[in-house]
Amino acid sequence: MHSNKQTLSSLSMFQALDKTEMDKLENISNIQLFSKKSHIIMEGDSRDAVYFIHSGIVKIYTVDVLGNENIIHYLRKDSMFPYSIFFVDDPYPVTAEVVEDAVVSALPIQAFEQLLFENAELAKYIIQILSQRIHLLNNRIREFCANDVNLRIASLLIRLTEEHGIRHRNGILINLQLTHQEVAYMAGTTRESVNRLLNQLKKNKTISIHNRKIMIHQIADLHHFLL
Amino acid sequence: MHSNKQTLSSLSMFQALDKTEMDKLENISNIQLFSKKSHIIMEGDSRDAVYFIHSGIVKIYTVDVLGNENIIHYLRKDSMFPYSIFFVDDPYPVTAEVVEDAVVSALPIQAFEQLLFENAELAKYIIQILSQRIHLLNNRIREFCANDVNLRIASLLIRLTEEHGIRHRNGILINLQLTHQEVAYMAGTTRESVNRLLNQLKKNKTISIHNRKIMIHQIADLHHFLL
Repeated sequence: MHSNKQTLSSLSMFQALDKTEMDKLENISNIQLFSKKSHIIMEGDSRDAVYFIHSGIVKIYTVDVLGNENIIHYLRKDSMFPYSIFFVDDPYPVTAEVVEDAVVSALPIQAFEQLLFENAELAKYIIQILSQRIHLLNNRIREFCANDVNLRIASLLIRLTEEHGIRHRNGILINLQLTHQEVAYMAGTTRESVNRLLNQLKKNKTISIHNRKIMIHQIADLHHFLL
Repeated sequence: MHSNKQTLSSLSMFQALDKTEMDKLENISNIQLFSKKSHIIMEGDSRDAVYFIHSGIVKIYTVDVLGNENIIHYLRKDSMFPYSIFFVDDPYPVTAEVVEDAVVSALPIQAFEQLLFENAELAKYIIQILSQRIHLLNNRIREFCANDVNLRIASLLIRLTEEHGIRHRNGILINLQLTHQEVAYMAGTTRESVNRLLNQLKKNKTISIHNRKIMIHQIADLHHFLL
């Protein structure tokens, strides 16, 4: 079970807020525990709350008409989701599925919007977060614009080391269990292309794979794809 | 020359603001005229102002290491750019180039941030705009996740009819002069693939091209690609 210490004030994104502001946030929020494979929100459901992650990993995605997952990102502690629901009446634009048991704070969206409206510091905070998210999404579009499939997969692996990497003696571990199909969804390519490149990278000792987690031994080799 | 009528209050995005708020905005803004092919902002320059478009067309893009343009969007009247510069210290993340002579209002970013901070209605407005932008960018990523190149190009054409379409007697004109290379950049594919599909669509009378503008005669044919 999660401890009482897992309050919103422990998240780095709220550390600029003063005690009164934090108390207001705590009063409207409630902490929830979700186990692996459960869905926190579903695309198309009416918007109800915005979530902040204390621990665990949450996969954010949509599903296209062919049933393919469009994985937007994997989120950890200190992340918020969904991003694009403030002051709009649309339903949830994405599905959030738990990949590793997660503790999250749920803030009812209307109460949170009211707080945002009354509190300039909090509004500034959310504007910063949304600005950064737009920057990241632009970078993802830049990745996709690459015609070369290997370049797209290499860019993706580099980004995942930045977002989920843990330094080890002999490399950087991307701390996410990923199937080749999931890598393919994220890079906008086929599982066959992913198999081919990952096998080649394993043969060259650029990467190794342990329990579905990718360890990057020679990140410079990946950067070569981008040149 | 532009008339004095081209004030910020004529933009639909500011129509919810009251007179005091509009006067504050007008006081810090200045109207500028840019001719075709000129650059309003350059990626990497330090951020200085946020821009609102009164008329004309502005292309927003970045350039990758190979010199390829990554076209993020074409913007018209009522749009703001760049999106992701509020309360962050990063340089401009994109280049804005004029495609059709443009009249824009420039708001010095620091003065605008101060106004945002003091004015909840304006902050709410910007949060709405950023939320909508994130929604659009997620949709663009969804487009890119499609493996099939023809499907990506068809999705792009459908989106462009929504953003830039003008209804005609015999179809919808995408009111943008585009080279095949620009279409390829936007769909994340090669010029050859674009040539091939557009020629096929012309042969089938799904589209026709006039003075580098694409007219869609049978939008249902494009939707068939998505099924």
